[in-house]
Amino acid sequence: MNRRMILYILGKMMGVEGVLLLLPAFVGLVYQEESGGYFLIPAAALAMIYVVFGIRKPKKTKIYAKEGMIIVASAWILWSLFGAIPFTLGGYIPNYLDAVFETISGFTTTGSTILNDIESLSHCMHFWRCFTHWIGGMGVLVFVLVLTSMDKKNSMYLMRAEVPGPEKDKLVPKAMATARILYGMYFALTAVEIVLLLLGGMSPFDSIIHSFSTAGTGGFSNYASSIGQLNSPYIDGVITVFMILFGVNFNLYYLMLLGQFEPVWKNEELRTYLVIIASAIAIITWNITSIYGNPLTAFRYAAFQVGAIITTTGFATADYMKWPTMSQTVLVILMIIGACASSTGGGIKVSRFLMVLKSIKKELKQMVHPKSVNLIRINGKKMSPEIVQNVFVYLMAYAGIAGLSVLLVSVDNFDFATNFGSVMGTLNNIGPGLGATGPAGNFASFSPFSKVVFCIDMLIGRLEIFPFLMLFTSISWRKKF
Amino acid sequence: MNRRMILYILGKMMGVEGVLLLLPAFVGLVYQEESGGYFLIPAAALAMIYVVFGIRKPKKTKIYAKEGMIIVASAWILWSLFGAIPFTLGGYIPNYLDAVFETISGFTTTGSTILNDIESLSHCMHFWRCFTHWIGGMGVLVFVLVLTSMDKKNSMYLMRAEVPGPEKDKLVPKAMATARILYGMYFALTAVEIVLLLLGGMSPFDSIIHSFSTAGTGGFSNYASSIGQLNSPYIDGVITVFMILFGVNFNLYYLMLLGQFEPVWKNEELRTYLVIIASAIAIITWNITSIYGNPLTAFRYAAFQVGAIITTTGFATADYMKWPTMSQTVLVILMIIGACASSTGGGIKVSRFLMVLKSIKKELKQMVHPKSVNLIRINGKKMSPEIVQNVFVYLMAYAGIAGLSVLLVSVDNFDFATNFGSVMGTLNNIGPGLGATGPAGNFASFSPFSKVVFCIDMLIGRLEIFPFLMLFTSISWRKKF
Repeated sequence: MNRRMILYILGKMMGVEGVLLLLPAFVGLVYQEESGGYFLIPAAALAMIYVVFGIRKPKKTKIYAKEGMIIVASAWILWSLFGAIPFTLGGYIPNYLDAVFETISGFTTTGSTILNDIESLSHCMHFWRCFTHWIGGMGVLVFVLVLTSMDKKNSMYLMRAEVPGPEKDKLVPKAMATARILYGMYFALTAVEIVLLLLGGMSPFDSIIHSFSTAGTGGFSNYASSIGQLNSPYIDGVITVFMILFGVNFNLYYLMLLGQFEPVWKNEELRTYLVIIASAIAIITWNITSIYGNPLTAFRYAAFQVGAIITTTGFATADYMKWPTMSQTVLVILMIIGACASSTGGGIKVSRFLMVLKSIKKELKQMVHPKSVNLIRINGKKMSPEIVQNVFVYLMAYAGIAGLSVLLVSVDNFDFATNFGSVMGTLNNIGPGLGATGPAGNFASFSPFSKVVFCIDMLIGRLEIFPFLMLFTSISWRKKF
Repeated sequence: MNRRMILYILGKMMGVEGVLLLLPAFVGLVYQEESGGYFLIPAAALAMIYVVFGIRKPKKTKIYAKEGMIIVASAWILWSLFGAIPFTLGGYIPNYLDAVFETISGFTTTGSTILNDIESLSHCMHFWRCFTHWIGGMGVLVFVLVLTSMDKKNSMYLMRAEVPGPEKDKLVPKAMATARILYGMYFALTAVEIVLLLLGGMSPFDSIIHSFSTAGTGGFSNYASSIGQLNSPYIDGVITVFMILFGVNFNLYYLMLLGQFEPVWKNEELRTYLVIIASAIAIITWNITSIYGNPLTAFRYAAFQVGAIITTTGFATADYMKWPTMSQTVLVILMIIGACASSTGGGIKVSRFLMVLKSIKKELKQMVHPKSVNLIRINGKKMSPEIVQNVFVYLMAYAGIAGLSVLLVSVDNFDFATNFGSVMGTLNNIGPGLGATGPAGNFASFSPFSKVVFCIDMLIGRLEIFPFLMLFTSISWRKKF
């Protein structure tokens, strides 16, 4: 275990957060808000940490998968711990644990909140809250990799621990260069959304922060009733489309940039993603038409909510807890499936879902013809048994963590649907859940113990379980540390 | 596809059900109930089917896995369709679909009911209802195999499709001989329970039918308040112990019969099963002590309910819907885990649960030491990657069917917890679920559509998914049929 290198990289990363904290401070300056000053305190502390750990490169720079995972998991926790400080210092979230919850929810692009009165925040606080989504969207670490240059082999291990989805190989070898291009596209798409929202009559501030939340598929808003506040079909439409766009595998945009439209069009994950979205919208529109009086309005609300849930953004234009149970069930299924691999969204990812469907089909075929060898292919590419096995273990670990979490938070004695929905909402990085944590509710009334469970779930969901388990499992610490 | 052989075997099996129906008719005679006569009508019909299909053996007797699965799935459905007739003819369950639901619930040892007034049934009807549990417990087909002699190779395919759990190999080669011994032990254990219940002051009739329900891990009772009606700590205790005993892998009893106690004591599935039971009882006792005033009473109710749920029997001595959410969550987790493989219980089985835990541990180890080869061992035996893969696909199919079922039954607009609990209750062959289908409720108020979904779930749960999917999947029918 290369302890010095871990500290060195973490030191660098802390420095970057210090710089990022200057941005909300600047927003505070623009709006002449005193609270802007509170961002400078953690910024100063982070600068000192950078000076101590992040400047002098250790002699031995080699790191492996284990170190990579530990760095990534620690980075997300440390960024959240420091990022939470301004909320508490400013008195907006007096309880530091609550502030940490809110910041983890931000960086992990979850969007769950413990705020009872969201609208009481100052501009710079709102900005920071939504900015954490944007930073978290493409991964704190990828972000740092783009800013600070590191040698290729090391960055591979770091990215492998952080990029979501089962197929990391395509992206990883090109590591740094690809990361820069991806971040460029992320930036460009965000900018286009800001412009389109401005054209719809949204204020510049609202346009920027809601675009941050959409891009990161986070879901924070400065309005208690989320996007519903604006009640504009145009705004709903723009955000629906952009949520769905940010849920697509970013590698496909990269291919399109290279002029390769054929593999994009034939991409099975994309097709499945779009089919799921279309089917879910159709079912819910049919199911809620009687509530909204006409199918067009029902379609508007259904499309928005489907986009918000499958991409795990978690914005709301309606309180789906008031919809029929069937619509709620469709949304719960979308919560679990989530967005595409290598997107900013959470959930188990469409590609894993696809792999499971194909495995079941293969198993049935093999029962009829026991000697036939049916390999699973995705996008025409054979999936090795190791990858398939890996996906299964992942999904089992996911189910186990979900079950354990529901059990742990049941200590607060909320009803079963609330507990189940809240775990789904945090573990899949969606934001709202069911029952008391539905779109009209929040996580404030849970006990500190349950809030810690939800914090861990958000981190586990964002880091796709294993890096986080690695940090806490005895296996990695027992030897040579 | 050997169509003639399928009809021949099914014909034989129908004949056996015809004979079994004479037993409740006899009970009707003893209690001088007119309703006993209604059992003779399906019995006569089944006798005719036997004469037409089940007597003349076809020339080609060879069958394969596909035929085996189709026979098993068809047999369970046909037995239920005929077994339901007396309930409807007698006017006890006027709606035939409801009667089919009740009979499937019986044969699959689920114990879910659509009866609002259970106690209005006559003795012979109660007897038949609980007898279906006992027959279903060790598998309709194994039962038939014991009674009618068939050649070895064919019976292997049939048993493989029916015996629950992932490790069928131990049992299968010895097929017939083993089946006879297992049935003998099943009979003996049932007899011991009857005697012990009689000693506790239970009436002979009640002792017999409740022992049938315990042995099959079914859960039907002739009292609306289930075992709670009797309010006897002794009876509760006896039934708790026997439920847990019937949830143990029957092969272990076989080993004990041979005097091999070492492998039984060291059996990992048994140990895990007992640890889960002990932990669940401890948590629930702690959680409900405040309700029952003292820990001893709390222990009595906790132990009974844990035994009833993990073995998927589904008896009740208390309405757990009134317990705190944590206790309910523990019970939901037990619902999913279920009993041991090759027992009469349902659920995903402890051995599969154990395999998942070991796979996750292996995956973590492999992340740290990528080149290490860590095979999963259960009871010291290496599990081949194929078996592990098979278990994963099974669990994924299970999760998919559960999700789809919750979606389909949501059409009735019950709350989410009720829908989720009802699917768990039927798919895992437990009986009661949550909310409206909790221990104090029943399935009567669901629409016919949802009842069909639950019927399919019960069959899928009992047959462990694949034989049932096989019956309906296009793959098996497309060719040469």
